[in-house]
Amino acid sequence: MKIKTELVHFKEGMELTSGSKLSMFDLMVETYGELNEEKSNGILVCHAFSGNHHAAGVSENEDISGWWDQLIGPSKAIDTDKYFVVCCNNLGGCSGSTGPTSINPETNESYGRDFPLVSVIDWVNSQKMLADYLGIDKWKLVAGGSLGGMQALQWALSFPDSLEKSGIFAAAARSSTQNIAMNEVARESIRKDVNFYDGDYLKHDVKPKGGLKTARMLGHVTYLSEKHMDLKFGRKFQDITSKVGGDVDFEVENYLQYKGEKFSNSFDANSYILMTKAMDSYDAASSFSGDLEKALECIKAKLLIIGFETDWLYPPKRGREIQLAAMNVNVSCSYVTLDGEQGHDSFLFASSRYENIIKTFIQS
Amino acid sequence: MKIKTELVHFKEGMELTSGSKLSMFDLMVETYGELNEEKSNGILVCHAFSGNHHAAGVSENEDISGWWDQLIGPSKAIDTDKYFVVCCNNLGGCSGSTGPTSINPETNESYGRDFPLVSVIDWVNSQKMLADYLGIDKWKLVAGGSLGGMQALQWALSFPDSLEKSGIFAAAARSSTQNIAMNEVARESIRKDVNFYDGDYLKHDVKPKGGLKTARMLGHVTYLSEKHMDLKFGRKFQDITSKVGGDVDFEVENYLQYKGEKFSNSFDANSYILMTKAMDSYDAASSFSGDLEKALECIKAKLLIIGFETDWLYPPKRGREIQLAAMNVNVSCSYVTLDGEQGHDSFLFASSRYENIIKTFIQS
Repeated sequence: MKIKTELVHFKEGMELTSGSKLSMFDLMVETYGELNEEKSNGILVCHAFSGNHHAAGVSENEDISGWWDQLIGPSKAIDTDKYFVVCCNNLGGCSGSTGPTSINPETNESYGRDFPLVSVIDWVNSQKMLADYLGIDKWKLVAGGSLGGMQALQWALSFPDSLEKSGIFAAAARSSTQNIAMNEVARESIRKDVNFYDGDYLKHDVKPKGGLKTARMLGHVTYLSEKHMDLKFGRKFQDITSKVGGDVDFEVENYLQYKGEKFSNSFDANSYILMTKAMDSYDAASSFSGDLEKALECIKAKLLIIGFETDWLYPPKRGREIQLAAMNVNVSCSYVTLDGEQGHDSFLFASSRYENIIKTFIQS
Repeated sequence: MKIKTELVHFKEGMELTSGSKLSMFDLMVETYGELNEEKSNGILVCHAFSGNHHAAGVSENEDISGWWDQLIGPSKAIDTDKYFVVCCNNLGGCSGSTGPTSINPETNESYGRDFPLVSVIDWVNSQKMLADYLGIDKWKLVAGGSLGGMQALQWALSFPDSLEKSGIFAAAARSSTQNIAMNEVARESIRKDVNFYDGDYLKHDVKPKGGLKTARMLGHVTYLSEKHMDLKFGRKFQDITSKVGGDVDFEVENYLQYKGEKFSNSFDANSYILMTKAMDSYDAASSFSGDLEKALECIKAKLLIIGFETDWLYPPKRGREIQLAAMNVNVSCSYVTLDGEQGHDSFLFASSRYENIIKTFIQS
């Protein structure tokens, strides 16, 4: 599989939905496979909140598999022998695209807390600029899970003529009150870190790692299913030799501590806040006074909506809301629920049914 | 209703399940109604993790209703015209009973981080000492919700002859992996507070209020049902005049911020950690290699188990586990699920069905 990683510069910048403007910006882009001559085999995959441009293959330096490597590759569900797959780190992220850790050209210092609020709509707009840069008029498919699924839906709304199909997995047309509440707890743990400095931590040469760790630990609890946690950890005690800390009794505590610690070393706290704010504020029907049917009327793409039974963060009923609205306004829409063993994270993992459904949808 | 608040001193101290010993201790006790001559009308109610001895009526100084005031009082479900209701702040708490903020007689400084781990079994043992002090050989009923329900169950196991009935509401025979995980996230947010000082914050004359606030915010999300949150807040934006902070967009965020802040002013962080550790470590069947049926065999009390449909922290199936085990070993056991609008917190609120079931159970 041919993999190419490229930092694409957009010197024209863009206006954001918040009213702010980025005078210029970069997107860190990774592509898999080759674009055909007609430029008709492009597939855009959109990452979830803590993801990045590295969606498939194994990165050169770090030996890390892409977040959707189980689904993207030669002969896989998203077949790179046939399709040219594109993924970019979203604006406001911390993996190479312009975000809070980037240098603000106005001040020559890192943006930090001054990085403007970004939205799902902004991301889709920037991805459209990327499509134009690549010469792709119409994606074969735009797909993603969780916050990535929201982008796939928004593509169908913002640019109805620029994609054939939209794959919306483990997602919703808007976040629920509980989703917002969980994100706010995570943000609060970051803000309360003594090293946060109201978002200006880079200027103090520190990072609010403790708060970020707690936030990620909470995230992990919401990504996994109750059953999966029970099967994986149960009430097993952590053996003393591999304890990460003296306060840990149960294995599940040790696991969360380990995962949180690891994440806090690599992710940026301001990005965490921006990404979750974008998730919370997303409402596909916001321009239609909350009327989802009216919002979906413009869609020309075929939709594939997949929900996972064990997902309690964005449970299948949230996908069903999109499906029902789509059906009522005559938008072509398939809706499937799968068992999914890993709760919300199920969208990341291959299973034969999941793979077949996606493969068939792309080829249909 | 006659209310009496009393600090009861136990100069003999007690040995804890951890192996540690408290050389002496106090319990802050509140009673409602009057003990009859035969001392046969006593009812013990056990508080949940952040509760205290103030279960009913309105406290003299603070104008705060007791946590079960909707259920305890003249002619209420737990009728103080007929019964003498007793509630105490649990050991390790922060409302008057001996806990981390108390003076350690060995050092003449506050216990702080040195306060020993306490368990549900320890609490029940201390409550038995309180029963002996009051001259009550046999409770008419021991009842509680959540962590209080665990104590009601443990009473039936530890002292089968010392209670007639046990009311176990919104509880479980053991915490699930997810319960433990959520508590660990809350504890981590406390530990990571720069003012925590590894539990020694009192010696530094500060409090880890930020961490405690985040912990409570998370707690609140788990206590409420998703539906209740949706109905109460939905995706409504917070109006600018009553925002608690500039980072708040949605009403639900404002509510959590307010609740968390309030709690962090009154609760002790070490108590938070102790109470949640007690909850996590509780396993009614721990002395029987996890075999709940074997554990319940000794029970002589009649059990009433109530679960609430909207409770996702201790959902009804957790009560059903107790019921099935009880049935299989011929323990008298009634099991009811109620709608409950407030999620896990439903056990705190009166409804006609809930009240009638408890009333009938007591009188049966």
